[in-house]
Amino acid sequence: MADTIRVTVWNEFVHEKKHEAVQKVYPNGIHNVIAESLQKQPGLEVRTATLDQPEHGLTDEVLQATDVMVWWGHMAHDQVSDAVAQKVQKRVLEGMGFIALHSGHYSKPFRLLMGTACTVNWREVAEREILWVCHPGHPIAEGIDPCLVLEHTEMYGEPFGIPVPDEQVFISSFAGGEVFRSGNVWHRGAGKVFYFRPGHETYPIFYNESVMRVIANGVRYVRPTHPPIKDAMPNRKMGWWEEQASR
Amino acid sequence: MADTIRVTVWNEFVHEKKHEAVQKVYPNGIHNVIAESLQKQPGLEVRTATLDQPEHGLTDEVLQATDVMVWWGHMAHDQVSDAVAQKVQKRVLEGMGFIALHSGHYSKPFRLLMGTACTVNWREVAEREILWVCHPGHPIAEGIDPCLVLEHTEMYGEPFGIPVPDEQVFISSFAGGEVFRSGNVWHRGAGKVFYFRPGHETYPIFYNESVMRVIANGVRYVRPTHPPIKDAMPNRKMGWWEEQASR
Amino acid sequence: MADTIRVTVWNEFVHEKKHEAVQKVYPNGIHNVIAESLQKQPGLEVRTATLDQPEHGLTDEVLQATDVMVWWGHMAHDQVSDAVAQKVQKRVLEGMGFIALHSGHYSKPFRLLMGTACTVNWREVAEREILWVCHPGHPIAEGIDPCLVLEHTEMYGEPFGIPVPDEQVFISSFAGGEVFRSGNVWHRGAGKVFYFRPGHETYPIFYNESVMRVIANGVRYVRPTHPPIKDAMPNRKMGWWEEQASR
Amino acid sequence: MADTIRVTVWNEFVHEKKHEAVQKVYPNGIHNVIAESLQKQPGLEVRTATLDQPEHGLTDEVLQATDVMVWWGHMAHDQVSDAVAQKVQKRVLEGMGFIALHSGHYSKPFRLLMGTACTVNWREVAEREILWVCHPGHPIAEGIDPCLVLEHTEMYGEPFGIPVPDEQVFISSFAGGEVFRSGNVWHRGAGKVFYFRPGHETYPIFYNESVMRVIANGVRYVRPTHPPIKDAMPNRKMGWWEEQASR
Repeated sequence: MADTIRVTVWNEFVHEKKHEAVQKVYPNGIHNVIAESLQKQPGLEVRTATLDQPEHGLTDEVLQATDVMVWWGHMAHDQVSDAVAQKVQKRVLEGMGFIALHSGHYSKPFRLLMGTACTVNWREVAEREILWVCHPGHPIAEGIDPCLVLEHTEMYGEPFGIPVPDEQVFISSFAGGEVFRSGNVWHRGAGKVFYFRPGHETYPIFYNESVMRVIANGVRYVRPTHPPIKDAMPNRKMGWWEEQASR
Repeated sequence: MADTIRVTVWNEFVHEKKHEAVQKVYPNGIHNVIAESLQKQPGLEVRTATLDQPEHGLTDEVLQATDVMVWWGHMAHDQVSDAVAQKVQKRVLEGMGFIALHSGHYSKPFRLLMGTACTVNWREVAEREILWVCHPGHPIAEGIDPCLVLEHTEMYGEPFGIPVPDEQVFISSFAGGEVFRSGNVWHRGAGKVFYFRPGHETYPIFYNESVMRVIANGVRYVRPTHPPIKDAMPNRKMGWWEEQASR
Repeated sequence: MADTIRVTVWNEFVHEKKHEAVQKVYPNGIHNVIAESLQKQPGLEVRTATLDQPEHGLTDEVLQATDVMVWWGHMAHDQVSDAVAQKVQKRVLEGMGFIALHSGHYSKPFRLLMGTACTVNWREVAEREILWVCHPGHPIAEGIDPCLVLEHTEMYGEPFGIPVPDEQVFISSFAGGEVFRSGNVWHRGAGKVFYFRPGHETYPIFYNESVMRVIANGVRYVRPTHPPIKDAMPNRKMGWWEEQASR
Repeated sequence: MADTIRVTVWNEFVHEKKHEAVQKVYPNGIHNVIAESLQKQPGLEVRTATLDQPEHGLTDEVLQATDVMVWWGHMAHDQVSDAVAQKVQKRVLEGMGFIALHSGHYSKPFRLLMGTACTVNWREVAEREILWVCHPGHPIAEGIDPCLVLEHTEMYGEPFGIPVPDEQVFISSFAGGEVFRSGNVWHRGAGKVFYFRPGHETYPIFYNESVMRVIANGVRYVRPTHPPIKDAMPNRKMGWWEEQASR
């Protein structure tokens, strides 16, 4: 595989245009702040796509040219077409990495990939979150040990409606007493999915260097290491091991 | 919870009406053969539902009154409405048990619950399958140890496009040399999903006592033990643990 | 299987005899408080065993007559003989349920069953712990939803050196900000293991009704449903499926 | 981390010295055949160690200088000292990769890491094994899709007494009809464990290029990507996140 990792940062890009408070923090949109940070990482080639573009910016060409997709959505999950959400799911099964950020827990592609409700409890009072590393040595936690502290953030609390993660990287506590599985990895088909909780539209979370370090670690961790694995349901009339054995 | 387990056996009931070969084996439909067998088990209350009924026989009333759904589909997966498939998924997340049989691997509800492609390789030459117990002592394998042999069956081969099962009960080999994860359990929300491979529309698999024993074991294993857990995304403005602690 | 679940509550029973502060809370030993509570549950038959008895009270007869073992150890893990620890592990693989309480995370049988370091971070300042239910509807959490609050307890913090649990029932937060996977289930052989964090020798945790409710739920959840599965490595000279098929 | 992966191939090196049939196939020992093959791979630095050396060749210096250990044992598992086996386990928890080959399923380090019996069924009649790829795109299966065929080998059959693998790479069928989970990955602490079934002392399995390709893939997959994570149980009197937050 090539050394360059092609990243597409997707943003619904809605509240940045509607709410002044969001505009102040992310005048050019959350996607551009994330993309600019990732672009500084060696070996990453980053583009962006948004809801209002044709096919939400996720044409077949873009999807095929994406190794890792980073997804932000919040108020407009329902405006993402089922067809596009299913194409994203399909690309993950082929091998594309997928990173859902914060409210992306309720996005269509993430929910399709989990098979569960993906619901959370929440509270918005700018409280402190501590993300604890549960799996020291995990590549996604590189540079973060033992924890990452965010002084002002929205709370998400358990129960988080997900299957038990295949790899548990972070668990958070909040000042109000709640907990949340905040850094989780699952294998889905030939691809990997990483959910990372931090992020918000009015708290400047994506300017935090440690948060962006984890996202960059995540991009490297979920990148595909193989050509796309195509979906198929072959009628294997004869054993192909016989062919293989006879080579 | 009540002691009676309310089972709904769902069948698309299509090839029994179209193909003479299928009619010979299952003149009243696969669902009725399965239902009659399960009805003989103590503590099970069994009904059936089919594709051609209004809402495919799966009205809200039926779904709410179902503890475990057994699903057969094969040629008509696409005729199941997305709305009904999503309701079945939602009921599983609330706690309903779900058993997908054979070609049900590619049914809409099963695929929604897995989040993956659920594809298989296949061959239809009436070959022998041996289902080996991988987890001795598992309640689903009760009475089957060490294996279950089917002399004439269709082959399904790996790769089976599923997440790694939470519990691996059976793995099959076929006379042609293939293998398949043929008895698998996953937790999804408050419900459990059991996939069981045996079954076919022209081989008389559902008249096999060992096959029906596993299905009955499965019904008992995936039954809910709690009232339905309703999906919610509460704004927890104040900590409810404070309320609780103060009781 | 018989309806009665035979429980053995094991306690090293050391600090109760050495430290006045512990004697005040548990004058007859932690094991007796736990056993008396469990004895009130319908269908449980409870005995106790302690370190200072011959074979630590865990003779072959006692082990064979135990369906679920509840384990408390703290200061004397090293005094448990390797032979007894290995026998307990072996019984779990045969099907016996095993519940490790609190500092039992570092007991020999639990570490043998996990294969990992089982280390934690800790602090003893009588702070508040909230155990959140992550898996609503799980039988072990029955009656506890949405959380269990302990006002004064020792802290255990992540990283907890365990394999990712097969079932994640509780995660705790502490007043000091730490988190901990505090209610975890794993399958090991034909048996199930439940780790439950609450417990302490000077805080009166085992007099808390909710704590004891979870332990009783746990006993029922990890009970075997089958006769002991004996360890073996048979030379299967001929396929026994042939025998079976010919019956 | 450095780019070079330091591999230690361990062999009990017993039957090569006792049995003429084994000598013919592996005159210098199985370890040297494996090591010579791996040595040809770019980026691997390979050494060997054997049972009869002081500390079985696994001194603290060797262990600290090993990124991935490949383990072969068969007749002399019991002659490995518990102290050395525990040191190997500890190094895996720190991050060292561990690959158990064939009869290494019953080696002390592998059993310590699994926590289970690790028993199998077996038969030795030189039958055909087909290892099917269950997880297309997995780095360990690179170059092998869809299967690897060994014409003459020993059979291992389920039930294999292991915890459900975190990643299921290969499942085998045998000419006699058995199945076996033959390529399995688990996370243990900061390290990864790969079990790979092929191998035998009189069948020339380790001269097979596809087998050696998988082992080389495995070495790269389980290599550590971080400095050793040291085992500890700190009394965290004050929250260190406070320190960190104040930096």
